[in-house]
Amino acid sequence: MKSTGVDALILTPGADLFYLTGFEHGHAGERLLALVLRQDGFAQWIAPAMNVPQVEQRAQSGETIRGWNDTEWYVGPLKDAMAGVKTVAFDDEARAGFLLDLLTVSPAMRVVPSGTILRGLRLRKDASEIALLREVAKQVDDAIPAAVSLCRPERTEGEIDQDLRSLLLTRHPNAAIAFTIIASGPNSALPHHETAKRKLTSGDVVILDYGTRGSVPISTAKGTDHSHIYGYQSDITVTCVVGDPTDPEVRKVYNIVYEAQQAAIRAVRPGAACEDIDHAARGVIEAAGYGPYFMHRTGHGLGLQGHEPPYMRSGNRELLEEGMVFSIEPGVYLPGRFGVRLEIIATVTKDGVSLINAPSAPELLAARGV
Amino acid sequence: MKSTGVDALILTPGADLFYLTGFEHGHAGERLLALVLRQDGFAQWIAPAMNVPQVEQRAQSGETIRGWNDTEWYVGPLKDAMAGVKTVAFDDEARAGFLLDLLTVSPAMRVVPSGTILRGLRLRKDASEIALLREVAKQVDDAIPAAVSLCRPERTEGEIDQDLRSLLLTRHPNAAIAFTIIASGPNSALPHHETAKRKLTSGDVVILDYGTRGSVPISTAKGTDHSHIYGYQSDITVTCVVGDPTDPEVRKVYNIVYEAQQAAIRAVRPGAACEDIDHAARGVIEAAGYGPYFMHRTGHGLGLQGHEPPYMRSGNRELLEEGMVFSIEPGVYLPGRFGVRLEIIATVTKDGVSLINAPSAPELLAARGV
Repeated sequence: MKSTGVDALILTPGADLFYLTGFEHGHAGERLLALVLRQDGFAQWIAPAMNVPQVEQRAQSGETIRGWNDTEWYVGPLKDAMAGVKTVAFDDEARAGFLLDLLTVSPAMRVVPSGTILRGLRLRKDASEIALLREVAKQVDDAIPAAVSLCRPERTEGEIDQDLRSLLLTRHPNAAIAFTIIASGPNSALPHHETAKRKLTSGDVVILDYGTRGSVPISTAKGTDHSHIYGYQSDITVTCVVGDPTDPEVRKVYNIVYEAQQAAIRAVRPGAACEDIDHAARGVIEAAGYGPYFMHRTGHGLGLQGHEPPYMRSGNRELLEEGMVFSIEPGVYLPGRFGVRLEIIATVTKDGVSLINAPSAPELLAARGV
Repeated sequence: MKSTGVDALILTPGADLFYLTGFEHGHAGERLLALVLRQDGFAQWIAPAMNVPQVEQRAQSGETIRGWNDTEWYVGPLKDAMAGVKTVAFDDEARAGFLLDLLTVSPAMRVVPSGTILRGLRLRKDASEIALLREVAKQVDDAIPAAVSLCRPERTEGEIDQDLRSLLLTRHPNAAIAFTIIASGPNSALPHHETAKRKLTSGDVVILDYGTRGSVPISTAKGTDHSHIYGYQSDITVTCVVGDPTDPEVRKVYNIVYEAQQAAIRAVRPGAACEDIDHAARGVIEAAGYGPYFMHRTGHGLGLQGHEPPYMRSGNRELLEEGMVFSIEPGVYLPGRFGVRLEIIATVTKDGVSLINAPSAPELLAARGV
């Protein structure tokens, strides 16, 4: 905060607040719950009265708790905590309404995103974080054969989704499902397709993109707790086919996406720029003539959030450092026909790269009437 | 927008955007996807390139779509769409980071919350919305006996939670679980307890607070779609006991909370102020000497969101109108001992009130060794 000239940092329930304090809360919504940390040493939680007991479990000594009730509302306590503050780093993932309330009571305040202060802290994972990431990665890796075998004719995307979720939760009762995308046939050409009622047909390409979330041990005065809302996440994408592909271009596109992913993996090392990883994958796809059909970045950071810095995109000159963890997931999407995406998670080591997941399959995976 | 002097409205994926357009999206995250509506008639979707096909399904004629890719990023397109705009109503539930980006490119812009424009539109439910709310309310009402019978000694809150979710989804395969809170014994004294591993004991009070979400039919050029992320929600709270209550004060507190709820229900009619409903419930609890232990508002609006306006809280002089829908959920929480909360959903009719749920039980519900 000193080096960036920020007087105060305001964090609301989310990954940053969890990372700093172990506090997590799933029902925050429209009631402000915030930790205010000031450069002058002032540290105060502002919390709805009914959440004060939960805050007490995580507050450190020296941090005060200012409860507010639904009659008083939070704007007064927030204004009090900001007295004398000229520049504030505000939680960039909080509701914009909270920021508008702050600007209403302090219109002259300079506001910068909290990422200015916090980004560097979560960007490089330490050994214990990498171990938690490997644990959840193994959950999704191990489920690949079963997930592929769920892709049978006449089953809907929604049914496959339900079965995949049950399968993961049965095998890993302490894990949570972070997300799932089941995109079949022409739906696979939509990178962020919302799983729907479409029935699979023999010859369909199916993209399975899914992730789980573990829990994090939290040391408290009473012993070790485990988080249940926040945890390190996994994220994998496989592309398979129901039997043999109907579209004659599927295998060709699969091989190009696979080669693009391999090129990106080879480009990872400390000191490479994030955009270099994107360019490595994109170069392979462009050289093969499919450049216009790869319309998203090559990867995103992964940790307590499914998408977090660093982002592997053109224009991002940020340099890779040891401990950074991110996805490598090139794709090619032919509108109305099919798409192929292959995703694994990689981490930057002292002198190169290590995969957090097992490698993507070099050949198109086929579900054959299991 | 004319009457409030707002030049442009910016909405991101959420209940407001869904309400206006039927567009829903679960993976928006850090990439701006927004609908910009200007008073001068300009209407443009700004969307990540990969989401353009999804936007096309919901965009109306006259609305343009400005796709952006991960190399270009969204700041340029957003600035272009804001040319000449002096006052903007910004989605108050969007990420604050998007607002900070807007203020960086247009530092002189006056920003007000989107609620200024949209609040009135969603506040009064029409007959079709009330019908959808009654449908999901019946789902949670019908589950009460089974939910209570799940509360047996030696079972954990987490196990009850899982069983309740399965039960609701098995009975209503097209519904989704909106949320669940299972709070037993001393945990019931925390209004927003996060379901945990605590094992129930005979004599425990248990608060079961849960809700489902239905889907909404959406008319499109191709026929009728159904939403799967947004839908009208249910929300109910029952308080029960495992066998007979250990704490001798439980039945007394239950009766007071029940009477408080009845008083609040009787106060509902068009023209009453929101705070009147709160005062009616709070008056009963204060008269009985438990005022300090009722530390939350009496109710919140319910619709496409689990918490939305109007809020039944002291200080809110907004007047009730026909079609408003909200919870009535007084509670008393004795720290370290137990809590009681009773919640139903009510709607304002032409001349009084109608319950969306079945009434709360007048006597404490008991789970007896089922």
